[in-house]
Amino acid sequence: MSDPCYATSRDAEKAFYDAFQCASVDEMMKVWANEDTIVCIHPMGPRLSGRRAVAQSWEQIFAGGTPMRFELTEVTCTLHGDLAVHCVHENIRHGPGLAQRALVLATNVYQSSDRGWRMIVHHASPGVVPLAPEQEAGSRLH
Amino acid sequence: MSDPCYATSRDAEKAFYDAFQCASVDEMMKVWANEDTIVCIHPMGPRLSGRRAVAQSWEQIFAGGTPMRFELTEVTCTLHGDLAVHCVHENIRHGPGLAQRALVLATNVYQSSDRGWRMIVHHASPGVVPLAPEQEAGSRLH
Repeated sequence: MSDPCYATSRDAEKAFYDAFQCASVDEMMKVWANEDTIVCIHPMGPRLSGRRAVAQSWEQIFAGGTPMRFELTEVTCTLHGDLAVHCVHENIRHGPGLAQRALVLATNVYQSSDRGWRMIVHHASPGVVPLAPEQEAGSRLH
Repeated sequence: MSDPCYATSRDAEKAFYDAFQCASVDEMMKVWANEDTIVCIHPMGPRLSGRRAVAQSWEQIFAGGTPMRFELTEVTCTLHGDLAVHCVHENIRHGPGLAQRALVLATNVYQSSDRGWRMIVHHASPGVVPLAPEQEAGSRLH
């Protein structure tokens, strides 16, 4: 079966998070460009370059067997020619019963080629939910 | 005096880190695009959008008065048309006598316009220096 051809960077992004939720290394690596210059940074992890290192990192993550569901918010897209930069908030539910929650900030870069749009950079880091003013004021009192 | 016009994304990147080292909010904000869609994520901080929020964050950082020097390594650049994506290792010396060291991973995105290249995304997060195999083996013994 031939590799998928994502018509837009949004299609590639959807496939990326679908593969993440399905814990499929095969589907995940179909989203990534076939280049040794690809870059992947998992939260608090080192910078990984090239398909081999990136694939190994997903194998390790998926081997953990932790179920994860993603809801993307605060999505911004900047598209110029063959490059698209997406900044997203990954609102993650994970763990048994998907009861735990986490926020991760991600910058995802996609590149267009004759094989459609593919990911070339995924930079993810722990997110911080800013306190609302009344919460902040309250927290200062304690 | 007119704003500078950076001829390449590398020129804009040099100006960004020069402004960081000089702790100059004015010089820093000249590097950023004049758009409300700009995104800045400081290590472990929330995602900031728009010039006002971004400028305030630099004011806060520079108000701390901590001297900082940057050496960039592992620089990769992907350039397509009017967008350039740089992934860098920020090797930072900081504090009294610049004696402390830190590694920060940054993804910097620049956009070209008739006013030259400007930064539109700075995503920075704490870096991890991978252990060399012999160090890793050593660390497992203890």
